[in-house]
Amino acid sequence: MEFQLIQKYFDERFSSLSQRSPNVLLGIGDDCAELNVDPEHYLLTSSDALVVGKHFFADANPLDVGYKALAVNLSDLAAMGASPLGFTLSLAVGQPVDAWLESFSQGLLNIAQEFNCPLVGGDTCSTSHPDGCFISISIFGSLPKVQKSLRRSQVQIGDDLWVSGLPGLARLGLLSQSATRDCLSQFLSVSEQTEFLRVWSGLSDLHKAQAQAAILKPRPRVALGRGLLGIANSAIDLSDGLAGDLKHLMNKSQVGFEVDASALDHLWSGLGQPFASDFLRNQSLQGGDDYELCFTAPSAMRRKVEQLSEQLQIRCTRIGVAVEDQRLMLRLGSTLCEVTVKSHDHF
Amino acid sequence: MEFQLIQKYFDERFSSLSQRSPNVLLGIGDDCAELNVDPEHYLLTSSDALVVGKHFFADANPLDVGYKALAVNLSDLAAMGASPLGFTLSLAVGQPVDAWLESFSQGLLNIAQEFNCPLVGGDTCSTSHPDGCFISISIFGSLPKVQKSLRRSQVQIGDDLWVSGLPGLARLGLLSQSATRDCLSQFLSVSEQTEFLRVWSGLSDLHKAQAQAAILKPRPRVALGRGLLGIANSAIDLSDGLAGDLKHLMNKSQVGFEVDASALDHLWSGLGQPFASDFLRNQSLQGGDDYELCFTAPSAMRRKVEQLSEQLQIRCTRIGVAVEDQRLMLRLGSTLCEVTVKSHDHF
Repeated sequence: MEFQLIQKYFDERFSSLSQRSPNVLLGIGDDCAELNVDPEHYLLTSSDALVVGKHFFADANPLDVGYKALAVNLSDLAAMGASPLGFTLSLAVGQPVDAWLESFSQGLLNIAQEFNCPLVGGDTCSTSHPDGCFISISIFGSLPKVQKSLRRSQVQIGDDLWVSGLPGLARLGLLSQSATRDCLSQFLSVSEQTEFLRVWSGLSDLHKAQAQAAILKPRPRVALGRGLLGIANSAIDLSDGLAGDLKHLMNKSQVGFEVDASALDHLWSGLGQPFASDFLRNQSLQGGDDYELCFTAPSAMRRKVEQLSEQLQIRCTRIGVAVEDQRLMLRLGSTLCEVTVKSHDHF
Repeated sequence: MEFQLIQKYFDERFSSLSQRSPNVLLGIGDDCAELNVDPEHYLLTSSDALVVGKHFFADANPLDVGYKALAVNLSDLAAMGASPLGFTLSLAVGQPVDAWLESFSQGLLNIAQEFNCPLVGGDTCSTSHPDGCFISISIFGSLPKVQKSLRRSQVQIGDDLWVSGLPGLARLGLLSQSATRDCLSQFLSVSEQTEFLRVWSGLSDLHKAQAQAAILKPRPRVALGRGLLGIANSAIDLSDGLAGDLKHLMNKSQVGFEVDASALDHLWSGLGQPFASDFLRNQSLQGGDDYELCFTAPSAMRRKVEQLSEQLQIRCTRIGVAVEDQRLMLRLGSTLCEVTVKSHDHF
């Protein structure tokens, strides 16, 4: 059964994408895939896994699960400024439900085609837990050797701090899904639940749909990352929440950040009514799963970032500055307070 | 907790190996690893997963599990003739038991050091099943562009068929482990169980230990695969059992094989007493998890294969020939009979 399923939903579905890629010399079906990495490029690689019950609800649409599994990996490439070459998939499911696999592989194919990222190998098996589902993707990308990749360790003191999109929006989407499933209390205190429901009910249908899309189908910022090569010093993709991810940059670069609270509040202003609140600011800082880019660039590069943002139609907002003092501070007018991080503890 | 555990057992333990590798420009700790693939080489990559209850017993020694997780991936590189560059690890465990992780990562480090294959990235998380454990490794290797990789599709009619080591020995090891756990009936019929116990009790302690090692700590044949470049036409690593893996070669190359039963029987002759039997021959053909190499080479290359075998101290045995008729035939003296394949169905 395994071979037929793999053949039907992976080999056959993905073969034309792989055949169209000049860098894939040998795709699925041998002991290894064989790729050509342009001699003028470095190879970049990353692995990210999704687990049922941790990264998606058990009843999630498999079309979305397939899409997101690759999206989060493409986001890692984006955060270095790399361009996709291909990916491998390891999939373990409790029961090989034909309809689930059909839909999962379609979602995966949709985003693979969109980002021209062929499936070049993998492995599927069953788990002994009927409702278990584990998806691990390894992604490969390339980066011109003449460029400096957007490493976490390269933040310079005085750099502007930027974010793309609206960090925290994905968290609103997740909370609305949790509300539907009556498990909001897993994420929020009672008073926060009230605040969330107030905010959510005030959103237009369009903005609700955007929040849902942000958690279910995050857009990896590959073009933005690539465009930032030569402009930004450093980048990270937002998966642990802005505060947590800023801490990663701080640790690697031995710097601190001052984040402007009014800039965070301003992020939310596009939602059509005065939504500024501690609750929403908190979602921006602590909510995870955004897969937006957070990057730093010299202030001399402001115009270039704005031009890139306009050209790609991806909003980029300057929210702070890198400082010498190795703490994460939030500026509230003339007051500075230190931000503590709710660590996203996967264990 | 996640960060501390990863840091303790993966970042710190593996950092010196990564730092010593000239091709690892950036290892664990950023969004991606950055590798240099020599311009004269292709990149080869593969992913293989291990699941508790499927690929190892729940009470298996985590030192062995860590070792084997990388071994099976190195074996995929070996089967193409590639040399290791590095690997990424995705790990999902039900409960992050410190002792388990300590031992698992030590086993992984042992083989990573032995094959000079640095850990360059990964992802760990928990599963909602307390006794679940899923390990996925993606491995990267390089192959000189001037060489032809050992693809499954390149078997030529008339090629000698070779195997390294003793295919089937790993299955004896697995059966002995199952006997200890009173679950032999999962693998064998009643009469086969009797036959197995007869064979096993006749083995010396040394050979019993070799069978255990074959299943717990398979030796990836990286040096052999590399040495076969320019000698062999085609190769596959034995994971599904010789018969099943020969079928893969047959399908990809549109050929058949004639396997000499006496050559299979001869494989077992080293075990010190006349063990030739349908039971043992069957373990060679249908038992999986050997991670030996099965390869084909022109008959003009016999001497070179023998020299390589001697040089590396890895036994290579000629067991048959590739033929035009696309069937898998076993030659028993002057009689030919077609071999049916027990498919290793992971679902």
